[in-house]
Amino acid sequence: MDLNADLGEGFGRWAMGDDEALLDVVTSANVACGFHAGDAETMLRTCRLAAARGVAVGAHVGYRDLAGFGRRFLDVEPATLTAEVLYQLGALDACARAAGTRVGYVKPHGALYNTIVRHEAQAEAVVAGVLLFDRELPVLGLPGAVWLDRAREAGLPVRHEAFADRNYLADGTLVPRSRPDAVLHDPAEVAARCVLMAVDGWVPAVDGEPVRVTPNSICVHGDSPGAVDMARAVRAALTEAGHEPRAFGRTAFGQTP
Amino acid sequence: MDLNADLGEGFGRWAMGDDEALLDVVTSANVACGFHAGDAETMLRTCRLAAARGVAVGAHVGYRDLAGFGRRFLDVEPATLTAEVLYQLGALDACARAAGTRVGYVKPHGALYNTIVRHEAQAEAVVAGVLLFDRELPVLGLPGAVWLDRAREAGLPVRHEAFADRNYLADGTLVPRSRPDAVLHDPAEVAARCVLMAVDGWVPAVDGEPVRVTPNSICVHGDSPGAVDMARAVRAALTEAGHEPRAFGRTAFGQTP
Amino acid sequence: MDLNADLGEGFGRWAMGDDEALLDVVTSANVACGFHAGDAETMLRTCRLAAARGVAVGAHVGYRDLAGFGRRFLDVEPATLTAEVLYQLGALDACARAAGTRVGYVKPHGALYNTIVRHEAQAEAVVAGVLLFDRELPVLGLPGAVWLDRAREAGLPVRHEAFADRNYLADGTLVPRSRPDAVLHDPAEVAARCVLMAVDGWVPAVDGEPVRVTPNSICVHGDSPGAVDMARAVRAALTEAGHEPRAFGRTAFGQTP
Amino acid sequence: MDLNADLGEGFGRWAMGDDEALLDVVTSANVACGFHAGDAETMLRTCRLAAARGVAVGAHVGYRDLAGFGRRFLDVEPATLTAEVLYQLGALDACARAAGTRVGYVKPHGALYNTIVRHEAQAEAVVAGVLLFDRELPVLGLPGAVWLDRAREAGLPVRHEAFADRNYLADGTLVPRSRPDAVLHDPAEVAARCVLMAVDGWVPAVDGEPVRVTPNSICVHGDSPGAVDMARAVRAALTEAGHEPRAFGRTAFGQTP
Repeated sequence: MDLNADLGEGFGRWAMGDDEALLDVVTSANVACGFHAGDAETMLRTCRLAAARGVAVGAHVGYRDLAGFGRRFLDVEPATLTAEVLYQLGALDACARAAGTRVGYVKPHGALYNTIVRHEAQAEAVVAGVLLFDRELPVLGLPGAVWLDRAREAGLPVRHEAFADRNYLADGTLVPRSRPDAVLHDPAEVAARCVLMAVDGWVPAVDGEPVRVTPNSICVHGDSPGAVDMARAVRAALTEAGHEPRAFGRTAFGQTP
Repeated sequence: MDLNADLGEGFGRWAMGDDEALLDVVTSANVACGFHAGDAETMLRTCRLAAARGVAVGAHVGYRDLAGFGRRFLDVEPATLTAEVLYQLGALDACARAAGTRVGYVKPHGALYNTIVRHEAQAEAVVAGVLLFDRELPVLGLPGAVWLDRAREAGLPVRHEAFADRNYLADGTLVPRSRPDAVLHDPAEVAARCVLMAVDGWVPAVDGEPVRVTPNSICVHGDSPGAVDMARAVRAALTEAGHEPRAFGRTAFGQTP
Repeated sequence: MDLNADLGEGFGRWAMGDDEALLDVVTSANVACGFHAGDAETMLRTCRLAAARGVAVGAHVGYRDLAGFGRRFLDVEPATLTAEVLYQLGALDACARAAGTRVGYVKPHGALYNTIVRHEAQAEAVVAGVLLFDRELPVLGLPGAVWLDRAREAGLPVRHEAFADRNYLADGTLVPRSRPDAVLHDPAEVAARCVLMAVDGWVPAVDGEPVRVTPNSICVHGDSPGAVDMARAVRAALTEAGHEPRAFGRTAFGQTP
Repeated sequence: MDLNADLGEGFGRWAMGDDEALLDVVTSANVACGFHAGDAETMLRTCRLAAARGVAVGAHVGYRDLAGFGRRFLDVEPATLTAEVLYQLGALDACARAAGTRVGYVKPHGALYNTIVRHEAQAEAVVAGVLLFDRELPVLGLPGAVWLDRAREAGLPVRHEAFADRNYLADGTLVPRSRPDAVLHDPAEVAARCVLMAVDGWVPAVDGEPVRVTPNSICVHGDSPGAVDMARAVRAALTEAGHEPRAFGRTAFGQTP
């Protein structure tokens, strides 16, 4: 089981989250590429921190929207989006190589992540950008997303993720954030659920019935001290259950997809 | 002899210059990387146009200053500048590879180009960025520039350029732009001087005496119809003199430094 | 009858259109405010050129998206959009006052213009931004747009525009751009239709039947030499018909709404 | 005596400092205007918080450099800088008026603040921008700065500031930051020195001798919990000494320069 989190989300003088603490917990780092967050120096530093810990570097590609942190849908032309994905991959890969590693996978960010679950044209555009960069680069996303279908059809390795702190509906989809029971807050419960996913391939849905969830990676957060503690609890529980987290993507220590 | 020019200098809906006309003349394209001009889609398109013609793609790295087109000195920290050069190289190289070629050399743009002729800290920062990307990437600049000295000391291949339309002083430096005789305007005279440089390694200085000028590349412009015509005249004259322009950097047709 | 056009749409070194030629034709200038195009220096210069000719200055407010020229829908939060409209109005009004005039009206740009024809939340957000700036500022837009309804309800003066070079359907809406007959190209025909609108309040729809069109302002373009010529033809025809164009908004020459 | 601090320095999702805590302490808020920090929504919110407390709103104008937080010298053309100062003043004033107050003074930020202490062309450009906006707007800066001389000559009201936590040399200038004794850290000592300035018009220089310091305003910081505590100590000490802080600029409560 892999543990992934968003990292390198500062910009210039502005910081976000405790990257060093989180990099001691996760096995895959979704590194912002300068379009929704991140800047060249932050990217290089984050890659070096990740490489030194054997953490895989993933390209957290997003809309070109620093003011909105990539969290707002942008009706960008597919040809533009394809080139922007390619640009971000190349920029981050240069930083990763300079740090002794490489981009090991790609995971879209924020509104782009949500949009290409269904938006055919943007989904195809993102996949086209990845293919222009590396026809063997793993892609990480939500099971059932249109863009992962397109990626699979194009021969890209597809990896699925689950969210450590999110409740599931009986059909295997996430409880919408608009519902009060969308997010779980108890670290022990969250850790136990992650072990269930890793060992047995299911978790209790919000109605109590088991729902099949078999991720390649679990997404944790680091935007608050409590979030880092929850991530640590997940890692400890997985390790104790004999599923010590391990990156699925390329790392500076030689793991390959 | 190589002919280089600045290309891909549009941004979003804004165009600059006639890239297609100029790409039929030059052998090396200095492609803007998104910091002072250029955007991902323009970069990918320019790389494709260059690759289709066997024109080498050079990284025209600049200050992060779209509003100023990279023409204003910015007192950026060396560590930031190093990462920004690396970022730009990686972003453009991804576009170049997607177009079937690679970044073949690096030439700084505008105020950065002028600054690192003398500014030690920024000169070293640019060289450090190139080294993090590729320890064998040729660098192109003005003879005598501090940054080229640092590049040579670091083992990078150094290439010199001359300016087709600029007058020289007796000491081999350019006549400052503040002087009325700084720039030449007659295409026939400019072409004849380029032939002199290519064949004999000298041109008449502004005082009439010969001054040694032995560039690896001649820089031409494309920002007006007249400029493209002058570039064509230079190419025709060089070809007629048996020095048909040829890229010094990597091209999609297989030339290597 | 007022004639309006988009002006000041350059950015930094990048130019767009022939502003001086167009300012000799129109009576109202929709000036970009730095979010989708324009920069402070361009805005100040454009305001001065407009003021010197007695042309009214309108705030051409847009999405924060220079890379997309404001032509892409952005799902911005209403509270953010309200503040951004206010910010753009204040910035342009400072330039206008420094030029001896004032912002005389507001007309949204591009994707924002199209979006708030129907999008309730963004329509209300734009109106809220205008109200925070000036509760008596005229707003200019397409008849039937939701945002104009909200503006009217809030007590803002509402002005309607027609498009000189667009065909109309029988119901008074524009022929969609996807149809080949959406845009008219003959300056004489366009000028004649503008006179019909001004004198009689109707034009032939695309099916030949008259459709009622009674604008306060006619929108012309300046993005090509042909466009400027067409704008001149419209102005000449209106003047000859006794409807010499005249701004509806405040101008440096003292006209008021 | 006035107390001023930098506020509204977040950008989009990125926060900086505890604005609400600091606004309960200071009497003047230097509000970032979107060029080096700040965005429209942050500006409007900060103005509203300031207005509700009777805190004066100052325009903290800076270089156009979000990535560098305005802390890097930029060799901007004077005409551009003038327009940019005007633009920032207008944008912030619209937010201030919407909040029931007005821009009460201008204080340049970061590298611009430092540059125009000596740089004639940029000093004149900033003053020109202020004059285009309001010929009676107070300007706040370091005694002896060239730009304040130009402002005074142009008839603008000039206000001087001192820095609560900085040591002074015998000639009345600040101990350079490169020296270990440049910055004071003890809140009680800092507060006592501020009282000395307010009551007696002098403080002990770094050599122990008294040096004349007679500011109109004292600058405090809010970028850490310790900094806010120090600001509180300064305010409490001034109040106890009978010099309760009071804005020199316009406020929502009616104070005027």
